[in-house]
Amino acid sequence: MSRETVSHEQGAIYEFAPEMDPVETVPPGTAVTIETRDSLDGAVQSESDLIDQVPGEVNAATGPIAVEGAMPGDVLRIEIEEIRIAEPEGRVITIDGFGLLDGYPQIEAPETRMTPVEDGQLSFEGIDVPIEPVIGTIGVAPAEESFTTLVPHDHGGNLDTTDMSAGNTAYFPVFQDGALFSMGDCKAAMADGEMCGTGAEVATEIDLTVDLVETDVELARPLVETADAWKTIASAETIETACELANEDAIRLLAADNDLSATEAYMLSSLVGGLEISQVVDPLVTVRNAVPKKYLSAPL
Amino acid sequence: MSRETVSHEQGAIYEFAPEMDPVETVPPGTAVTIETRDSLDGAVQSESDLIDQVPGEVNAATGPIAVEGAMPGDVLRIEIEEIRIAEPEGRVITIDGFGLLDGYPQIEAPETRMTPVEDGQLSFEGIDVPIEPVIGTIGVAPAEESFTTLVPHDHGGNLDTTDMSAGNTAYFPVFQDGALFSMGDCKAAMADGEMCGTGAEVATEIDLTVDLVETDVELARPLVETADAWKTIASAETIETACELANEDAIRLLAADNDLSATEAYMLSSLVGGLEISQVVDPLVTVRNAVPKKYLSAPL
Repeated sequence: MSRETVSHEQGAIYEFAPEMDPVETVPPGTAVTIETRDSLDGAVQSESDLIDQVPGEVNAATGPIAVEGAMPGDVLRIEIEEIRIAEPEGRVITIDGFGLLDGYPQIEAPETRMTPVEDGQLSFEGIDVPIEPVIGTIGVAPAEESFTTLVPHDHGGNLDTTDMSAGNTAYFPVFQDGALFSMGDCKAAMADGEMCGTGAEVATEIDLTVDLVETDVELARPLVETADAWKTIASAETIETACELANEDAIRLLAADNDLSATEAYMLSSLVGGLEISQVVDPLVTVRNAVPKKYLSAPL
Repeated sequence: MSRETVSHEQGAIYEFAPEMDPVETVPPGTAVTIETRDSLDGAVQSESDLIDQVPGEVNAATGPIAVEGAMPGDVLRIEIEEIRIAEPEGRVITIDGFGLLDGYPQIEAPETRMTPVEDGQLSFEGIDVPIEPVIGTIGVAPAEESFTTLVPHDHGGNLDTTDMSAGNTAYFPVFQDGALFSMGDCKAAMADGEMCGTGAEVATEIDLTVDLVETDVELARPLVETADAWKTIASAETIETACELANEDAIRLLAADNDLSATEAYMLSSLVGGLEISQVVDPLVTVRNAVPKKYLSAPL
């Protein structure tokens, strides 16, 4: 099967809106390569380039791409096959007014450090860091409200979730005809939490296969399948609320799959897998609830 | 070397206080076996036994044990060697007014489910769950304030952290002469988050070796060493604040060990390892910041 290529030159969004014009339309089952800009739009190329000087908008997501036949209530499946770093170096920055320790006297912002790729690793101030690419922003057209690409919500968006990586499969609720998915904001490496506000931001080429899932399950929020777990993903104003939403979603799947009451599924969720932090720095924060596959044979 | 045994019969506390009488005093380097009651004090032995009917206090911690020569400013090292389940079944419960989804209409509380040990696994409603024992409450005498054993803080206490498990080593600041450590509230299995408010609560026998570390590092809060990471541990009113404290502690260690500025250490913390949830249900919540050992050769 041939592989479609969609580049940021063809189209990129700074807002996930209910109505968007697709830059490409593909049938379910299509293999696609998506080219993404770095989240700072190529404007930070040395340590003297600071976030204050970036002229335009940030966090472009390549797309949107329509999937033929996708309708509200469907589930979109994105199998992430490979994420290639498409430039010789990434960059990590601090931003005044942003980040977990924003305002702490010992933290300087804005600052930039470049992270060159050397011998298949990143170099941060001379320290080798393994390249483990993550798609920071990935999502579909939302139900009613529009969200800038800096905000994560039930449509996905700026989830900054380390499991959005090669070998994993992401699932999104379809809210609009064609689903209209977009992605960008990739990192060559990122910690759970994304504490300083960025990972090592880089341009990438992402190989994926997009498909629709036939299911009776009503998916409310994104879900990701890793080698050994299913993880519900929820974003909210506080980490506490995001934990509640992710746990509620996990319990619903656990109860259905194991023929348990909600209370028993809640108890089981308190014994296996658990809550994980995606990011604590974006306008809404993101948490996931991992459930080992042993307890969820077929959640969708 | 002989091994000391300290049982809950000899002494157990329901409050970590600055001044406590030790039930045993041991020299640094001593191998100790600690016997712990289950957190519900043996009062829940069937599904008709509910938390409301537990007559006495809950969350006993066996101890305190004094370490000869330990002085404020020292660091106590507890190498956790083995945790054996000491009864034929555990129990998981819901509690009215407690737990992540407390008050949600689909969750019933109080409820109890027993988790018998069968063929080396737990059984929860017929579902096999691997036994991976965790010490829920572990800590030392605090600096000034007293904390019930239900509360985690800088002295440790009810940390409910899955890394407090066999093979790992926990470090605590010493605030009082003799350190005065205690532990209990073990679980045969527990998810990160402890969402319903408990894991599978069980009586255990814990083999450990206690020692003092010679270091110039001023440890403010607990730290745990796993096979591949050092993890700072912080408890606070909100998960956000706990994340900040755990990240601050991680940055301090990263900066010292790698000769980085605080800002650069903050950036590096945003690239590798990351924030992890311990528990989101106790009176204060607990978070850890994992730093792979590759980046922290000798934090203490």
